[in-house]
Amino acid sequence: MRREIAEQPQRWADLLDRQGDALRDVRDRIRSRPPRLVLFVARGTSDHAALYANYLVQTTWGVPAASASPSVVTLYGARLALDDVLVVAVSQSGESPDLISFVRMARANGATTLALTNAPASTLAGTADQVIDLCAGEETAVAATKTYTAQLLASAALFAADDVARLLPRLPAVADEVLQASSSAAAELATAYRFANRVVTAARGYSAASAHETALKLMETSYISAHGMSSADLLHGPVAMLDESVPLLCFASQGPDTAEIEELVSRAHQHGVDVDVVGDGTVTGRRLPPLLPASIRPELRPLLEIIPAQLLAAEIAVERGLDPDSPRGLSKVTRTY
Amino acid sequence: MRREIAEQPQRWADLLDRQGDALRDVRDRIRSRPPRLVLFVARGTSDHAALYANYLVQTTWGVPAASASPSVVTLYGARLALDDVLVVAVSQSGESPDLISFVRMARANGATTLALTNAPASTLAGTADQVIDLCAGEETAVAATKTYTAQLLASAALFAADDVARLLPRLPAVADEVLQASSSAAAELATAYRFANRVVTAARGYSAASAHETALKLMETSYISAHGMSSADLLHGPVAMLDESVPLLCFASQGPDTAEIEELVSRAHQHGVDVDVVGDGTVTGRRLPPLLPASIRPELRPLLEIIPAQLLAAEIAVERGLDPDSPRGLSKVTRTY
Repeated sequence: MRREIAEQPQRWADLLDRQGDALRDVRDRIRSRPPRLVLFVARGTSDHAALYANYLVQTTWGVPAASASPSVVTLYGARLALDDVLVVAVSQSGESPDLISFVRMARANGATTLALTNAPASTLAGTADQVIDLCAGEETAVAATKTYTAQLLASAALFAADDVARLLPRLPAVADEVLQASSSAAAELATAYRFANRVVTAARGYSAASAHETALKLMETSYISAHGMSSADLLHGPVAMLDESVPLLCFASQGPDTAEIEELVSRAHQHGVDVDVVGDGTVTGRRLPPLLPASIRPELRPLLEIIPAQLLAAEIAVERGLDPDSPRGLSKVTRTY
Repeated sequence: MRREIAEQPQRWADLLDRQGDALRDVRDRIRSRPPRLVLFVARGTSDHAALYANYLVQTTWGVPAASASPSVVTLYGARLALDDVLVVAVSQSGESPDLISFVRMARANGATTLALTNAPASTLAGTADQVIDLCAGEETAVAATKTYTAQLLASAALFAADDVARLLPRLPAVADEVLQASSSAAAELATAYRFANRVVTAARGYSAASAHETALKLMETSYISAHGMSSADLLHGPVAMLDESVPLLCFASQGPDTAEIEELVSRAHQHGVDVDVVGDGTVTGRRLPPLLPASIRPELRPLLEIIPAQLLAAEIAVERGLDPDSPRGLSKVTRTY
């Protein structure tokens, strides 16, 4: 897992290099004929990348976007009217039967379909109209890391505004810096979380994906009961469960989401909650040093801020004497029907 | 909270009686001119009702449906192209600023808008094109119960298939039976969960809403770190965190979702997990008696299976010496901007 985390800058460079034409081609097609709706289908980590892409589509293109529930097709046999809809399936393995069923239904019912997958020879890739190969190389750790950020990068290349997309070639170098700056901070935080059995992670907007993905990594590798939430949803009830025994890890930078994260942190402090913040923001109560350059656009932060969180998940597992590469009860490919 | 739980059958009868014409009117309009997309906006408990409605729209009408993220509008100022889209805002109080902003944006950009709210004089109701009054009476407990099932009932009246919608007037009587059958079972389970600080709730399809809503109730009233998940998402990673200290509460009845819940329960048993099941299914390892009549259609189970779960949340809080009516750190109306 650590090796695959460290590979990410190089894999991003590979993706931009090898799939640059394919990404531009899909981007140009969307621009010339915008879909009336973009529906993402994905599970687990890939669904967090889809959440990020979903925000980009809406804020950049003004096109509604959402996550589809494959079970309306696989459990209930729904046939949806999908003319002028772009369906994007996001899957590391490309072999999840429910995603394949959804894409088949979508193609048969008017949608254009696109697969973002690390397995260009997979069944999913063979089923979709267009394919972006994530070029992340074989991922052997059960906990997905480099395929996740490759999905984010491909999403940014496809759906971010021009002035953001232009910045992507600089990201591998920035990610190298973040990796270096994060390793001791992640180890320190892992020591602090050594005996936590509950953690809440929170963020909003583009970074909501980071909160969800961090929680999943903590659950998978360290068996912590980790809740990843948008700070808005957290304030709608679950905030009640925070106390001295449940640390809160926020992703917050200077931006439109800062005020709400500040409110959350202030309420958490009232209940004696231990708060940590990944980002460059001014949120009070932080322990971690700023790990991200302040100049990074909010749209691109999810690619970078997840790096310390991935390291944290690996470090806690090791601190606990667990093997983050083969968590109990999990296999690399989950088949959902 | 207990009083409001017990009121539900009567409130459902009121809703069907008083809003029957309004519900039929909206239903007829959808039938005569189906939208190309239904977008729900909601937070917290109301968002779980929206999830249920979302499934009904897709399986009954073959129209894609999804939850919208209000923050694309409130944080990032997105203007979405929403011609021929039905936007449904679900809100007990009708005063959440982010939902109001989303509905305003939607109306200005081509959508038809509908509010399902318990406050027909609220700002949200005044903003939407059409309003369904949930007729649940004043809800004073912070943890929403009767407004949730009123939202489910209104959703079924609007979006379920004809042969399902016809059954709705029978539900109040069935709910009375479920209330009676559940009270001792809920108290018994509350004793079993007295010292649990983590719980996982799971279901799939229509009942996924029940898993999410139960988890939220447990977090709000008992401060349990409760994860509500679709069983499919649970099997994609978080299943690793289940062990002897984390009970699993499933919603499962005989239906297309049974095979997956059986797989989940079997894997949970391998890890020594304590499993309970609300429903009438044959899933092994259950402790609770069947609380729902076997003849209830899967589309209508969410209205009934949540009743024992609501009672459970109230009972655990009382067992712990907490006041389920005024959980720490929460107020009745949460304002998200």
